[in-house]
Amino acid sequence: MDVRPYFAVYPEKDNLIHKLVSFAEIPEPPLFTASHAIEDLKEEKVTYIDPNLSPAERVKEAMECLPPDLEAVAETTFKRWTVHDFWKAYKSGETTPLKVAQKFLAAAKDSSDSHLQMGFFINYDAEDILRQATESSQRYDRGTPISVLDGVLVAVKDEIDCLPYPTTGGTKWLHKVRPCTDDAICVKKLRSCGAILVGKTNMHEIGSGTSGINPHYGPTRNPYNVNKVSGGSSSGSAAVVCAGLCPVALGVDGGGSVRMPSALCGVVGFKPTSERLPSSGILPLNWTVGMPGIIAGTIEDVLIVYAAIANDTSRYPYKALLPGFNLPLLKCSHLLSDVKFAKYEKWFNDSSVDIRDCCDDALQKLSKHYGWKTVELTIPEIEEMRLAHYVTIGSECTTFLATHLENINFGEMGYDTRVALRVYGSFSSREYLNAQRIRKRQMYFHNEIFKRADVIVTPTTGVTAYALKSDAFSTGELDYINGAALVRFSISGNFLGLPAVTVLVGYDKGGMPVGLQFIGKPWSEATLLHIAFALQVLLIKSYRKPEVFYDILKGL
Amino acid sequence: MDVRPYFAVYPEKDNLIHKLVSFAEIPEPPLFTASHAIEDLKEEKVTYIDPNLSPAERVKEAMECLPPDLEAVAETTFKRWTVHDFWKAYKSGETTPLKVAQKFLAAAKDSSDSHLQMGFFINYDAEDILRQATESSQRYDRGTPISVLDGVLVAVKDEIDCLPYPTTGGTKWLHKVRPCTDDAICVKKLRSCGAILVGKTNMHEIGSGTSGINPHYGPTRNPYNVNKVSGGSSSGSAAVVCAGLCPVALGVDGGGSVRMPSALCGVVGFKPTSERLPSSGILPLNWTVGMPGIIAGTIEDVLIVYAAIANDTSRYPYKALLPGFNLPLLKCSHLLSDVKFAKYEKWFNDSSVDIRDCCDDALQKLSKHYGWKTVELTIPEIEEMRLAHYVTIGSECTTFLATHLENINFGEMGYDTRVALRVYGSFSSREYLNAQRIRKRQMYFHNEIFKRADVIVTPTTGVTAYALKSDAFSTGELDYINGAALVRFSISGNFLGLPAVTVLVGYDKGGMPVGLQFIGKPWSEATLLHIAFALQVLLIKSYRKPEVFYDILKGL
Repeated sequence: MDVRPYFAVYPEKDNLIHKLVSFAEIPEPPLFTASHAIEDLKEEKVTYIDPNLSPAERVKEAMECLPPDLEAVAETTFKRWTVHDFWKAYKSGETTPLKVAQKFLAAAKDSSDSHLQMGFFINYDAEDILRQATESSQRYDRGTPISVLDGVLVAVKDEIDCLPYPTTGGTKWLHKVRPCTDDAICVKKLRSCGAILVGKTNMHEIGSGTSGINPHYGPTRNPYNVNKVSGGSSSGSAAVVCAGLCPVALGVDGGGSVRMPSALCGVVGFKPTSERLPSSGILPLNWTVGMPGIIAGTIEDVLIVYAAIANDTSRYPYKALLPGFNLPLLKCSHLLSDVKFAKYEKWFNDSSVDIRDCCDDALQKLSKHYGWKTVELTIPEIEEMRLAHYVTIGSECTTFLATHLENINFGEMGYDTRVALRVYGSFSSREYLNAQRIRKRQMYFHNEIFKRADVIVTPTTGVTAYALKSDAFSTGELDYINGAALVRFSISGNFLGLPAVTVLVGYDKGGMPVGLQFIGKPWSEATLLHIAFALQVLLIKSYRKPEVFYDILKGL
Repeated sequence: MDVRPYFAVYPEKDNLIHKLVSFAEIPEPPLFTASHAIEDLKEEKVTYIDPNLSPAERVKEAMECLPPDLEAVAETTFKRWTVHDFWKAYKSGETTPLKVAQKFLAAAKDSSDSHLQMGFFINYDAEDILRQATESSQRYDRGTPISVLDGVLVAVKDEIDCLPYPTTGGTKWLHKVRPCTDDAICVKKLRSCGAILVGKTNMHEIGSGTSGINPHYGPTRNPYNVNKVSGGSSSGSAAVVCAGLCPVALGVDGGGSVRMPSALCGVVGFKPTSERLPSSGILPLNWTVGMPGIIAGTIEDVLIVYAAIANDTSRYPYKALLPGFNLPLLKCSHLLSDVKFAKYEKWFNDSSVDIRDCCDDALQKLSKHYGWKTVELTIPEIEEMRLAHYVTIGSECTTFLATHLENINFGEMGYDTRVALRVYGSFSSREYLNAQRIRKRQMYFHNEIFKRADVIVTPTTGVTAYALKSDAFSTGELDYINGAALVRFSISGNFLGLPAVTVLVGYDKGGMPVGLQFIGKPWSEATLLHIAFALQVLLIKSYRKPEVFYDILKGL
C-alpha cells in the first residue's frame, strides 16, 4: 500500500508540525534527553530506603511505609485484591499460589473465548506459569517465601523481554529479527522477589497508537464496557489489572502509554522520573522519551512494585512513605501539611464535561479533607509540546526499526502502523532538532511552574473510553482526534521526564472511568504517591466493579 | 540557483552518507552531546588554579606555571613575540601599547593593500583600537597594568561577538538579522585582563568550508606562501598570528576549524575539552560540536589565554604546569616521567610523504629526549565518524539558520555555501539520530584507546596548504577531497569533545608548515600542553619566518 495519496489531501499550510515545529522560531538550544540532576528535594515525611538492599529487602522496607489497616476497605466496598491480600491468603494457607495460578489460567481462557474476545494477552504459557506457581507454593509450604510479592501474578507488556516468550512489540515480525534472549532487568527483579510472570499482554502495534486496537492479536476490550476501547499502547496490562487477573502489571510509557489505558480502565498508572527504572531489555522503540511504568489496582501496590524494580545505583536513592491513614475514620497521621496544586483551567474546560466534573470534585475533596490548595496557572504551548514529542518519538522509532524494515513485508503490518511509519520516516533533522529546542523551552516553563506549585494536576485524558468500531479490527485504526485528546496532558511526563500518576476519580455518564493525573517535580515520587494515596482513600468506596471481572483470589 | 541537478549526478549507491550513516547497522543508542563527567585524572606535575580567581588573577597564576628562561630562545632563532615579550617591553618602557597599536594598524593596512590582499580581517576599527591602546598605555604609565595581557593585541574570529563590530559569520547578511549587542564571555574576560581587541578576522562563510576562501571578504592567504590557502574556517585568526600581527587570536572549532588553519599556517591551535570554555556570545552555527579555541605563536601563550578565559565554575577547575626547561641546554625539571602515545600507522601513511616524515621525526625526537613511548593502535571507523559529524554539524547549522534563510536572498551567498546549505537541509531525522549512535560507538572506542595510551598522536592534516585557484575567489570553493583530508584527523576533538592541540613540526618540500596533533583524554589539558611544550622546545630553533611577516613589537 502506498499511503502517499492519503497525505496528499492535507495541504501544507494545514500541517501543524510544519507550523509549530519545522518553521517555528524557537530561541532555545536543543535539549536531547530529560536527565535530571538529583536534588535534595527537602520533602516532608519521606523515608529513604537503602539502595544497596536487594529487591526483596526493599519490598520489605516498602511494606513498612504502608498504613497498618489497609484491609478495612476491602470489607466495605468493591476493591481489587492487593499484593497484601494475596500475601495474607498465602501465609494463612487460605489458598496457594498454585490454586491462584490455576484460577488465573481459567480466567485468561474465559476472557479470550469467543463470547468475550477481550484481547488481553499476546502470549501466556500455562506450563511455565504452573511451574513458577508450584515453586512459590513450595516456598510457602516450607515457610520461606521470598517477599510479599512471592506468588503474586504479574503480567508484562509485550514490549518488555520476559522468558520464555518472544517480544513481539504487538507485531507479527519484530521477534523474528530481534529474538528475546533474556529477561529485562525489571522482570529479573520481580522474579527475584518470587513474583509469577504470567505472560505478555496485548499492545498497540509497535506502540504507535492509543486505541489498543491490534489487528493481529485483536482489540483489547475495556472490562468496564466490552464495546469500548481500553486505551493504549499498554492496553493489555491496564485491562488485566482492571479485570482482576493480576494485581499488578508492567507497561511502557513513551507518550502516556501507561497512564492513558490505566485511566480508561479505572486503575492506577504510574510513570516515575526518567531513569528511575531500568530500561534494559525493553524494545528500544525510542531512546529519549519512554520507560517502564507500573499499573496496579491501588497506590500501595504501585509502591511495592516500585520499591522492587527501581534502579539501585546509589546515585538514585528512591524514597517513599504513604500516609498512615486510619481508613474507616479517615483520620490520618504523617500527612503532608501543605501541598499546592497547579491547575490550568483551560485544560479542564477542554475535556469532556463529565471528566471536568469528576476532576474538579476530586480537587475539592482534597481541599476539604486535607486543606491542600489549588493555584490557577497557565501552562503554555501544550500543542507545540505534543507535536514536538510526536516528531521525537516518531524519529527515534523509525531509526530503530529502519534496518529491519528493509527486510520485512509491509503487508504484515496494520494499516495504521504503515501510515505511522511513513509519517515517522518523513521527519527531517531540522524537525528533530527543533523538537529538542521546544523540549528545552518546556523544561524552562515547567521549572517556573514548580517554583509556584508542588504538583501539576490535570485530567489524565481529555476523553473517556470511546466505542470500538468493528471495521477497524482487521486493519487497525489511526484516530488522530481521539488520540490527541487521550495523550495531550500526559506528554510532559515523557518529554520532560517528570514523574506522573493517574488515579480513578469517578465515571462518566456511560459508566466509563475518569482519571485524574498528578505530575510532579523530578524525583518527587514520594510526594506524588503520598498525594495519590490520600485521594484514593477518599474515593475508594465509590469505585465500581467492571462488567468483566475475575476474582482469582477468593472467587471463581 | 537550484543546485539539485548538481546532486543528481551522484547515484545513490555512491552516497557514502547513505552507506555509512543512514542505512548502517549501528548497535549503539544515540549520544547527543559529548559531556564528560569530571574525573580525578591523577595527572602528575599539575597545579590546580583556584577557579574563584578573576581572569587577571588566573593569568598571574598561569605565568607562574611557565619556565623562567623562555626568552633564551628568542635571542637565538626566529620566534614570534610572545605575551611575555610584550609585557617586558611595556614594563621596561621600551615601547607602549599605543605605539604597538599604531604599528598593528600600519601592518593591517599594508597586508590588505592591493599588492598583498591577504584577506586577514573582515572588520577593524582604528579609532576603537587606538582608544583601547591609549587606556592601556596610561595604565602602564601609572604603574597599574591589569595583567601580562594588558596591551596585548588579540584578534577574534568573526563568529564571536565583540563590540563595536557586527558578527557577520563571514556572510553579507547574518549580522543584519542577528545584531551583535554585547561581547562574548571569552571576549569580556580578555578585556578584563587589559587585552586590546583589534577586530574581527576573516573566516570561511558560516564556517561551512575548510579553505578560507571567502567570496565576500576575499580569500585569506597563507603568510608562508600568498598563493596558498590558509585553511579554515578560522582562516584569518591563524593567519594574523602567523604573520605577527597579534601574538594570540580566538577562533571557533566545530570540525577542526581552529587546529587545521593553525597547522597550515605553522602556529599553535588549541581546542580544550568541550565545555571548558564559555560558548556564550558565539554564533550558534551548531550546538553540540563547536566551541572557541585559542591560536598563538607558542604553547606558553596558549596557556595564558586559556587561564584567562576558561570557565570558572568550581565544578570545572582547570590545571596546568609547563615543564621548567633550561632551554639552551635542553635540561628539564618537572618533566612527566612516562607518556604513552597511541599512533595509528594507517593515518600516517594516508597523509602526504612530507607530513609523514615530519610527524615521525617529531615522535622520534620525543622518544629520544624524554623516553616517551609510542604504541601502535587501530582507531576504527574514522570515515564513519567524519560523515556522522558532517551530518550533525550540517543538521544543526541548517536548523539554526532556517528561520533566517526564509527571508534572505540566496544570491548574497557564495556558491559553496548555497550547495552546503542544500546538503545540510536534506538530512533526515534518521540520519541525525544514526550519527549520534555512531558518536556513542566512537566514544566507546576512544575510551578503550585511552586505557592503553595517554594521548593519541596524528598528523593534524592529511595535506599541507594547497594552491589558491583564482576562479574560486568570486564564487567560493567546495573542495570535498582536500576538505576531507584536512579535517579527518581533527573530528574526534569535536564529535567526542576531546581536548586537542596542534604543534608545528616542520615543513613540506614547498616550505609549507606541517602540524602534529595531540588528542587527549577529557580534562587532560594540562598533560596535553605539557607535552606540546616539550615538543616545541625541541623544534623551535628550526622554525622559519613566513614570507609575509610584521614585527609589530620591535620592527617596522
